[in-house]
Amino acid sequence: MAPLSSWLQVDPKSHFSIHNIPFGVISTAEESKPHVAVAIGDHALDLHVFAQENGFSALSIIQPHQHVFSEPTLNAFAQLGRAMHRVVREYLQSVLLKDGPFKNVLQENQQLQQAALVPLEKCKMHLPMFTNDYTDFYAGLNHAYNVGVLFRGPENALQPNYKHLPVGYHGRASSVVVSGTSIKRPNGQILADPQKKEPMFSPSKKLDIELELGCFVCKPSSLGDPVRIEDAPEHLFGIVLMNDWSARDIQAWEYVPLGPFNSKNWATTISPWVVLMDALEPFTAKGITNDTQVLPYLDEKDRKSHYSIDLSVSLTTSSGTASSIGKTSSRNLLFSFPQMLAHHTIGGCPFNVGDLLGSGTISGESKNEKGCLLEQTDNGKTEIALEGGEKRKFLEDGDQVTITGCCGTEDGGLVGFGECTGKIEPAVSMSF
Amino acid sequence: MAPLSSWLQVDPKSHFSIHNIPFGVISTAEESKPHVAVAIGDHALDLHVFAQENGFSALSIIQPHQHVFSEPTLNAFAQLGRAMHRVVREYLQSVLLKDGPFKNVLQENQQLQQAALVPLEKCKMHLPMFTNDYTDFYAGLNHAYNVGVLFRGPENALQPNYKHLPVGYHGRASSVVVSGTSIKRPNGQILADPQKKEPMFSPSKKLDIELELGCFVCKPSSLGDPVRIEDAPEHLFGIVLMNDWSARDIQAWEYVPLGPFNSKNWATTISPWVVLMDALEPFTAKGITNDTQVLPYLDEKDRKSHYSIDLSVSLTTSSGTASSIGKTSSRNLLFSFPQMLAHHTIGGCPFNVGDLLGSGTISGESKNEKGCLLEQTDNGKTEIALEGGEKRKFLEDGDQVTITGCCGTEDGGLVGFGECTGKIEPAVSMSF
Repeated sequence: MAPLSSWLQVDPKSHFSIHNIPFGVISTAEESKPHVAVAIGDHALDLHVFAQENGFSALSIIQPHQHVFSEPTLNAFAQLGRAMHRVVREYLQSVLLKDGPFKNVLQENQQLQQAALVPLEKCKMHLPMFTNDYTDFYAGLNHAYNVGVLFRGPENALQPNYKHLPVGYHGRASSVVVSGTSIKRPNGQILADPQKKEPMFSPSKKLDIELELGCFVCKPSSLGDPVRIEDAPEHLFGIVLMNDWSARDIQAWEYVPLGPFNSKNWATTISPWVVLMDALEPFTAKGITNDTQVLPYLDEKDRKSHYSIDLSVSLTTSSGTASSIGKTSSRNLLFSFPQMLAHHTIGGCPFNVGDLLGSGTISGESKNEKGCLLEQTDNGKTEIALEGGEKRKFLEDGDQVTITGCCGTEDGGLVGFGECTGKIEPAVSMSF
Repeated sequence: MAPLSSWLQVDPKSHFSIHNIPFGVISTAEESKPHVAVAIGDHALDLHVFAQENGFSALSIIQPHQHVFSEPTLNAFAQLGRAMHRVVREYLQSVLLKDGPFKNVLQENQQLQQAALVPLEKCKMHLPMFTNDYTDFYAGLNHAYNVGVLFRGPENALQPNYKHLPVGYHGRASSVVVSGTSIKRPNGQILADPQKKEPMFSPSKKLDIELELGCFVCKPSSLGDPVRIEDAPEHLFGIVLMNDWSARDIQAWEYVPLGPFNSKNWATTISPWVVLMDALEPFTAKGITNDTQVLPYLDEKDRKSHYSIDLSVSLTTSSGTASSIGKTSSRNLLFSFPQMLAHHTIGGCPFNVGDLLGSGTISGESKNEKGCLLEQTDNGKTEIALEGGEKRKFLEDGDQVTITGCCGTEDGGLVGFGECTGKIEPAVSMSF
């Protein structure tokens, strides 16, 4: 099926085709207060302005709720529920469709185009949602296996629980930041000599990335009330790219017995545009087959609840040279977001709108499909070669890491996430 | 020094003497919207009403900020900073002091007494603060040692990192609930037969308590900016009692390699009245001496940064019989709250006002000083005897657990926390 066309000029290779319509939070020179927009091609359609100027006049169902587009986060819009997301997104697609049913709204309204269509380079992007609780899972089977081999050998690579439940830990919501935010190298305790068990204070020397997907929740659940696996999809709003920056040396020292802490709570970067679950629906896929029969509360039967998202990571050094350092697919997950939510709530843990689920690092099976440097360099035992002759075991100051992700075809049919990027700054210098 | 006296009748054994003045959030028949109050004896002084009726007329510095007392949480008041907390608390003490300098404000104002003094039994208590991020530490040395002995034997009871840093994990903010909230037994995956490594779905059979203190943060810190140990006290607002309910069987199966998750995220109960750091200042004490020299960023030198709070736990069965099941002191901590905050932020993790730090389970050295049943019953190998002949390995449905804590003397000089209580309800019945 040929892709749909917009009357607005959209590069056929744009992540933000008319098939996508991702939601984000922008501020502009005209309106410095953060508010809601969607992306189309290299423009944002400013929904605060669009709503004020009667852009939604043909969609009566949203009219009592139009204030949600003037909010500084997507939480209020998300809380309206999946049915409303669907209607609003499809309406905006129709408005943008060449000679579509609502061409009078924007295609034939130069004044509203002038007011509401803002070039993306003029938009400052903000965190799309307020997140009360952020949880990071470990559902990338190949990653978990590879890391397990590194630390426990191939015999015990996966813990006995691994295929029975989506293993996860509670992350730090306060350090979730939007793409583009500078990332200071963390200080902390590391073992200078692993034999001695005497830590030293140091900037992390094993700074790493973790290529992940993040999924936002749009429907709250109460204390003591599990979300059943079949209801879980209605609780999911949309997906972003995520880089869960990690300090491997801090992690190695601190993590027993309660898990990662300061090694991961100093920054988690997400892409600014939330791709709605409906936009991803054409790209559903099976994940990795689980050869263990899960308990009924996690059993999705044969539902395709993963997505075929092509993911890639590049590293740009301070000299400006960019190198591709990994490509993989989001199909490399053993558990899906509905399974993660069903597991997370099975004991009664409540959710708020805007809560964020991280997939865990996504790696494929082959050498160049690894989602973190820990795997790529065998925890710093080897190096990866970059374009221009530089090499890396872990990240150096000045390195910029960019994750991209996309579904669909490059003929105007892409449904992509744009970029999730961050640059490493030197650690804070501390004197005592 | 003899305790101060109030013109208001206050039981000399009340936790809420004039030396205390803890802050909380109440709603009443007259004002159903949650708002701020302090406790004195068996009354709440409703600060929303008190402020509206010019109770703060003699304290000009608070006047531009009086809206904070009408807020549904203490966050706005907390954010005013330690200096303001001190001034407001001392002013309220003066107002309540018998023949004090401000006796015209309330002592001689029957009308305002009528409007603003509400018997505690007529107050509905709410969560005192909105918490974006909750972190639970593991700073109770005796507890960590005892649990380590249970699972790894006395030789390896404490992990190598234990005395070098306050070990902790990120908890779940959404399931922090106020004292009195009913607690449903969680369902989850447990190992029926530990040899088989095949989990079953079941209500937890090893439901436990954890006796802890919680500390709220009142001053934000930014991404990448560590809070120095000497500045940390200015970031701390006040302390509450905490029961970090735990499901030991779920924990045993799920916790490798990323730490506790569903075993602890289904409920954490806190006491409703926040005792300010200033109220606790007369009760500062040394904690457990750390025989390991900590790194400079954690070194408090000789500062007394712990508190002599007498803590006790009681269990009331569904037959109504109450039994004391543990008494200890909060001095049994290896790391202080300032050390926890300095460690938590050393890598750049940011804090928001209202963020909550849990101390970890507090146990003394002797048999009846244990802060959880796991320790008291050697993980269910033995039983504890309750009054009236019943016995317990872990909690049963209908059991109500109440933690209390107090400093000072029972002659009108108590600075206490009231109660932190919760009753176990049966697990949700699920069919598939």
